[in-house]
Amino acid sequence: MTTRMIILNGGSSSGKSGIVRCLQAVLPDPWLAFGVDSFVDAMPAKMQASEAGLDIAADGRVSVGADFRALEEAWTEGIVAMARAGARIVVDDVFLGGAVSQQRWQKALGGLAVLWVGVRCEGEVASGREISRGDRVPGMAALQADLVHQGVIYDLEVDTTHAESLECARTIAAHVS
Amino acid sequence: MTTRMIILNGGSSSGKSGIVRCLQAVLPDPWLAFGVDSFVDAMPAKMQASEAGLDIAADGRVSVGADFRALEEAWTEGIVAMARAGARIVVDDVFLGGAVSQQRWQKALGGLAVLWVGVRCEGEVASGREISRGDRVPGMAALQADLVHQGVIYDLEVDTTHAESLECARTIAAHVS
Amino acid sequence: MTTRMIILNGGSSSGKSGIVRCLQAVLPDPWLAFGVDSFVDAMPAKMQASEAGLDIAADGRVSVGADFRALEEAWTEGIVAMARAGARIVVDDVFLGGAVSQQRWQKALGGLAVLWVGVRCEGEVASGREISRGDRVPGMAALQADLVHQGVIYDLEVDTTHAESLECARTIAAHVS
Amino acid sequence: MTTRMIILNGGSSSGKSGIVRCLQAVLPDPWLAFGVDSFVDAMPAKMQASEAGLDIAADGRVSVGADFRALEEAWTEGIVAMARAGARIVVDDVFLGGAVSQQRWQKALGGLAVLWVGVRCEGEVASGREISRGDRVPGMAALQADLVHQGVIYDLEVDTTHAESLECARTIAAHVS
Repeated sequence: MTTRMIILNGGSSSGKSGIVRCLQAVLPDPWLAFGVDSFVDAMPAKMQASEAGLDIAADGRVSVGADFRALEEAWTEGIVAMARAGARIVVDDVFLGGAVSQQRWQKALGGLAVLWVGVRCEGEVASGREISRGDRVPGMAALQADLVHQGVIYDLEVDTTHAESLECARTIAAHVS
Repeated sequence: MTTRMIILNGGSSSGKSGIVRCLQAVLPDPWLAFGVDSFVDAMPAKMQASEAGLDIAADGRVSVGADFRALEEAWTEGIVAMARAGARIVVDDVFLGGAVSQQRWQKALGGLAVLWVGVRCEGEVASGREISRGDRVPGMAALQADLVHQGVIYDLEVDTTHAESLECARTIAAHVS
Repeated sequence: MTTRMIILNGGSSSGKSGIVRCLQAVLPDPWLAFGVDSFVDAMPAKMQASEAGLDIAADGRVSVGADFRALEEAWTEGIVAMARAGARIVVDDVFLGGAVSQQRWQKALGGLAVLWVGVRCEGEVASGREISRGDRVPGMAALQADLVHQGVIYDLEVDTTHAESLECARTIAAHVS
Repeated sequence: MTTRMIILNGGSSSGKSGIVRCLQAVLPDPWLAFGVDSFVDAMPAKMQASEAGLDIAADGRVSVGADFRALEEAWTEGIVAMARAGARIVVDDVFLGGAVSQQRWQKALGGLAVLWVGVRCEGEVASGREISRGDRVPGMAALQADLVHQGVIYDLEVDTTHAESLECARTIAAHVS
C-alpha cells in the first residue's frame, strides 16, 4: 500500500522540523509539510496566550483550550483531505495527549496509509538544543520528552540524541512504500 | 447563509496579509488563515526555483509548473475540507490565472458559503510597498496589480491605495454573515 | 558637510523600518541599517522579559533596566564608530526618553554630520498598523506616538499617516548632502 | 586580562549561531552577539546578489565585492568600538579569506583581549545540517568547512560533529577570564 502520509510525533526541540526538511529533500516525490507550528501560525494572534486558545506558562507547560481543540480537529480533517486528494503529506506534531492525540488523527485518517514515526531525544539533550535555538520557552523540551510518547504506537522510531536529522530522514524514507 | 470562508485575491504587496491579520483581530469568532505564502512554505525547498515547481524570474515574473499545480489542487481541497469540518477560514491568494484560478476554488467549494473579496492597490503604490518590505523580488507588484483580477467576480472589493488594512478589514467583516 | 548618519526617531509601528528599506533603495551609495530591533536581537534571550533588561508589559508599556542602558550606550558608540570609519549609517530608534535619548546619541556623535528625522504617525493609525503586523504587543503604538518626540529637535519630519514609505524616503534623501 | 570579545570562526552550518545563543545563556554577564548574518541583514537589499556586494552562486560559492569589503571594514571597527566602550561582545564570522580575515580583525582590535575560537564540523555532517535548515544554498557548508580555517590561529577549537552546542559553549565559557 502506497504511503500517503508520514506523521512524526515528538517533544519540543526533539528535531522534528529538521527531519521534515531532510525528508522533503531525500524523498523523490514532492511532499508537503504541515505541523503544529504552521497550525499555530494560522490561528488569530489573540488566541495565543489565551485560555480558550494556546497558553505557554513561564515554566514551559503548554495548555490548550476549547477553541484550540475545535480548530485543531477541523485542521486535522483538512490535512487528511489533502492527502486523499493526492498530495503526499508529512506532518510533525506534538502529542500532548499521547495516545488520545494519535486517536484524533486515526479517526480522521480512516483507512489512509500512514507511516507513524516516533522522534525521540533524551530530555537533557533536547533541553540543550532548546537553549541553542533561543526562541523557545525554556522547559518545554524536558516536560514533553517522554510525555508525548505515552501509549503511542509507531511503525518506526528514530532518536536524534546521537543521530543527525539527515540520517533519521533516510531511515524513515526507507520505510516509505 | 453563514459565511464559512473568506477568499481574498490580490497582487503581490497589495496588502492582503495585513488585512487578514486585522480580520482575525476584529471578527468575534476565531478564524484560521491560510494562503499562497503558507502553501509555498509547505513545499520542498527544492521545488522553489524549479521548473516543475515555482520560479520567480529576476523581473518578478512568476511561473508555476506541473508539480506546483497538482499540489495546489490537493491543498485547495484540503483547505475547503477544514471549512466543511467546521473551521472558519480566511484565505489570501494570488490568482495568476484570473478567472481560471477562481474556478479552481469554486470547483472545490461546491455550495459552501464564501465571501469573495478583491484586494486592489494601484500598481505604483504596490511597487513602492514592495521596496519598503525589502524581501520581495522587485517587479512582482506591478506585474500582478491588474492581471490577477481579470475575469474574477467579487462580493466586494477593497482598495488599499488610500485605505488602511484595519479599515478594509472592518468593511469586509461587515459583509460576513 | 557630507551626511554620515541618518537617525530616524518614531514610535512603534510608525513606519520607520519601511522608510529605512526605501532609503537603502533610493540612496545611490550603500547605507548600512541598524536600529533598536537589531540591538534587541543582539541581546541575550534571558535579558528579554527581565527587569535588568527589557520588559514589555501586557499593555505595551516598555521598561528598560540598568543592563539594557549600559549595553545600549556601548552599542551607540560602536554604531557611531562605524560611521567615523567611513560607513554610511541609517539608524531607526525609539526615543523612550525623548530629548534625553537624543542627547545620548549627540554625546557619542561629537561633531559627526547627522540628519535628524522625526517619523510621525497619528496614534490611531499606528495602532491599526500594529494590529495588521500581528507580532507586536498591542498598545505600544498608541503609548509611544507622541511620547518619543518630546523635546527632540529634528532637521526634518515626515508623517506616514497619509504618506507612503517610499515618498517619505525620497523627502529624506533630498536632504542628504 | 579580562576577555572583552569572543570571536568564533567556522564554515556555514558548522553550528556557530547555536553556540553563540548558548554562550549568551551560560555566561553570567550579558554579552551582545553580532556576526556575518546580522551584517548582511544591515546591507541594502540591492547589495545582495550584486557584484559589488555579496553574490552566492548556485553551487554555494560566495564572492564579495568592493562595497562589501569597505562596509565590512567599517563594521569591524564599530564592533570593536562597542567592546572598547564596555560591552562584552561575541562575534561569529566566516573567514572566507582565512588568515587574511583574521588579520582584518586583529588590525581593528589593537591590544583588546580576545578569545579566538575555531568551530569545526566535518564537511559531510555540516552538509547534512545545511539540508535540515532548508534556508541555505546547498554546497556552502562543504566548500567552507576547511577553507575558513586555513592559517587561522585559535585559543581553542570546538568540534560540533559529535558535540552539542551547549557542550561547546561550556568549553568556551571556561576559557573566558
